[in-house]
Amino acid sequence: MSTATLDRASIERLVRSALREQLSDFRQNGAQKAAPPKLVVNVSARHCHVTQEDLERLFGKGHKLTPYKALYQDGFFAAEETVTLIGPRHRMITGLRILGPCRDYSQVELAFTDAIMLGLDIPVRKSGDHRDSPGAYLLGPAGMIRLERGVIRHERHVHMGPTDAAYYGVKDGDRLNLRVQSDCPAVLESLLVRVAPSSKLEVHLDTDEGNACHVNRATHFELFK
Amino acid sequence: MSTATLDRASIERLVRSALREQLSDFRQNGAQKAAPPKLVVNVSARHCHVTQEDLERLFGKGHKLTPYKALYQDGFFAAEETVTLIGPRHRMITGLRILGPCRDYSQVELAFTDAIMLGLDIPVRKSGDHRDSPGAYLLGPAGMIRLERGVIRHERHVHMGPTDAAYYGVKDGDRLNLRVQSDCPAVLESLLVRVAPSSKLEVHLDTDEGNACHVNRATHFELFK
Repeated sequence: MSTATLDRASIERLVRSALREQLSDFRQNGAQKAAPPKLVVNVSARHCHVTQEDLERLFGKGHKLTPYKALYQDGFFAAEETVTLIGPRHRMITGLRILGPCRDYSQVELAFTDAIMLGLDIPVRKSGDHRDSPGAYLLGPAGMIRLERGVIRHERHVHMGPTDAAYYGVKDGDRLNLRVQSDCPAVLESLLVRVAPSSKLEVHLDTDEGNACHVNRATHFELFK
Repeated sequence: MSTATLDRASIERLVRSALREQLSDFRQNGAQKAAPPKLVVNVSARHCHVTQEDLERLFGKGHKLTPYKALYQDGFFAAEETVTLIGPRHRMITGLRILGPCRDYSQVELAFTDAIMLGLDIPVRKSGDHRDSPGAYLLGPAGMIRLERGVIRHERHVHMGPTDAAYYGVKDGDRLNLRVQSDCPAVLESLLVRVAPSSKLEVHLDTDEGNACHVNRATHFELFK
């Protein structure tokens, strides 16, 4: 070992290195205590939610949604029913799928790429928050409705149950970051945490976010504060 | 001041806090030495590049590109000329703009959202690298050409001159990360650094990346190792 006097910078380097190792030990021990929960990341293509009343105006009196494909969260499904969305420039999106079950409010969720094509300037909102959001026409086989507002980009979020929330040390309304390892790597920041007793751990991104990070070919995901 | 014995954890906290302050000082002093260069972040919508030969097959013998709008990098422009791109599912994109001047190779640059709509599985590549890339038909007023390959997602990158490269401490082919502050904040990682004597500092993203991070409404950008 050298007996030369250590200068200030060298001492700092040594202390920093020692701290880094120790912090790394802490993290590894923490991980051994509780195995990380299974993290599912899903990309939601554009879709809409409707009230039972709006569903009947679009598909006829007494119409009920027909499940087409179960979603990852229990009880939710993509419906057989799709509508045509008509924007202010008379451009349209056909085959816009309805997700069920019916809700207390009708809402259209688009990626910015979709909205720009339609000519809509949409805000980033959590579900049900329609402040400053534009409307659009929805066309179904039995009729057309005009949504006064409710076309939004759904803000990136993560569903989880109470056990997951305890693991990540968060509560409903908090924020987490998502690291995506792929050939287009990124950290998507500030995902809204939504905790509910029956929720499974699942990140919801839109197609712009999913495609930007190549989520379909991702090799690893990490959720962190 | 307390005279109580400090435990190991408290000492660590103090050392960590002291180091953090000192590191922060170092960074601030560094920034005072050289002001950061002006960082421009631009989103490239889908477009194509063509050879003079392909241009003539699309627009007629002896045709020359007509500049429509100058791009940020000196000498480059969006042309008046646009073509129709036809994919394998007979879906098409009309009005695909040609960027000039003509190149040694013809190439189509799409976002994944565009490619998925067309039914194309495109790789992430730097310009001119067409390994494993699909082709497509391009249709102009004077004719149609079949590109055997060359439809790619252009990998996110940053152009810079030698002075910028020195500032960031990088060389051509290195990688940098881009932090985007907006209502959809993110860190896009691993941008390819492209250094050329005449280049201005400019990040190029595609529309998926730009829309994912809401680049159009971003309040701050930061490029870092």
